[in-house]
Amino acid sequence: MEFFYAAGACSLASHIALEEAGLEFEAKRVDLFKGEQQEASFLSMNPKGRIPVLVTDRGILTENMAILLYAAMTSPSARLAPLDDPLLLARMQSFNAYLATTVHVAHAHGPRGIRWADAPASLEDMKNKVPENMSAAFQLIEDEYLEGPWVMGEEYSVADAYLFTLTRWLKSDGVDPDQFQKVKDHHNRMLERQAVQTVLSRERSNA
Amino acid sequence: MEFFYAAGACSLASHIALEEAGLEFEAKRVDLFKGEQQEASFLSMNPKGRIPVLVTDRGILTENMAILLYAAMTSPSARLAPLDDPLLLARMQSFNAYLATTVHVAHAHGPRGIRWADAPASLEDMKNKVPENMSAAFQLIEDEYLEGPWVMGEEYSVADAYLFTLTRWLKSDGVDPDQFQKVKDHHNRMLERQAVQTVLSRERSNA
Repeated sequence: MEFFYAAGACSLASHIALEEAGLEFEAKRVDLFKGEQQEASFLSMNPKGRIPVLVTDRGILTENMAILLYAAMTSPSARLAPLDDPLLLARMQSFNAYLATTVHVAHAHGPRGIRWADAPASLEDMKNKVPENMSAAFQLIEDEYLEGPWVMGEEYSVADAYLFTLTRWLKSDGVDPDQFQKVKDHHNRMLERQAVQTVLSRERSNA
Repeated sequence: MEFFYAAGACSLASHIALEEAGLEFEAKRVDLFKGEQQEASFLSMNPKGRIPVLVTDRGILTENMAILLYAAMTSPSARLAPLDDPLLLARMQSFNAYLATTVHVAHAHGPRGIRWADAPASLEDMKNKVPENMSAAFQLIEDEYLEGPWVMGEEYSVADAYLFTLTRWLKSDGVDPDQFQKVKDHHNRMLERQAVQTVLSRERSNA
């Protein structure tokens, strides 16, 4: 398989999950600043022009929420999701959906407001609201959703890779990560995992 | 179980899926215009203040992407998802993720721009861009993702309920739905299903 990612982008979540799953894949870097995701060769593969993309022998898979689930389901022995309990699996998907639809979207209004408005003043307005929205979202995660030590409680899951990825955006979003003790501990716990170290090092070294 | 929805809102997708799954639930209407989702009783159940919410005997489940998967997994005989094929299941989740993270978000910049900006001019700017973004998203769905007759091809799935729900927003988003022939046929096909008729009638009658 081939896995297309951008360093430090949301694709880090899928990247970690694929590594934890022990799947064989070739990691391919996409430079978003050079606009490589809008080049014809990339668009012919993924017409959305977005990362992450997983190329399998049965076609491509896009969107973190899908690749995370796929990594967990194809490697049950890696125990990356509560596969045998529909309610818990759905709850993991619910957490991931919150990250994808609310948290990632709140963040995106900083660097990518141009998706939703045109005037420079509008983009500035959006940027100014990012710290407030990201703070509110992480306060909710801290208070309600991060059971600890992992997102789903005692069992590690792909949701942890996703939370880890978005937590890393807080500082550049103008939010002090230290105010969320459980999230901070979770982040440090993630940094101790071999797969996380491997992937972070890979994403840095291809720079 | 209890299912909290708002008439015509994105919760329609989960509402249809629960009905197709043959699950027993009491449908409870939430009036978003009256702000019932921000009342203390609702927030104590779902601190996000959003619909849909499914109350199960093992706690609540939020987010369409989670409830759709849960409905399919708990009623395998209803055949609402390719449960035995991780790649196809992940591809269904990928389609649903696109609807949740890109299409629903594009739409939300019309009625709910206040989430991401404050100034009236910014909100106006966002509103003006909604038709362009919704058109682009549905063009992609028409050209690339809706296999036909159903989203996943020959097999119906919960992704069809989700697409049906967002298709109904096109007109109020300033987009002519008739320009997307496959999407239009899909919508008409959905209207023929008993569960869809039952749910539409229920959401109307509780008004």
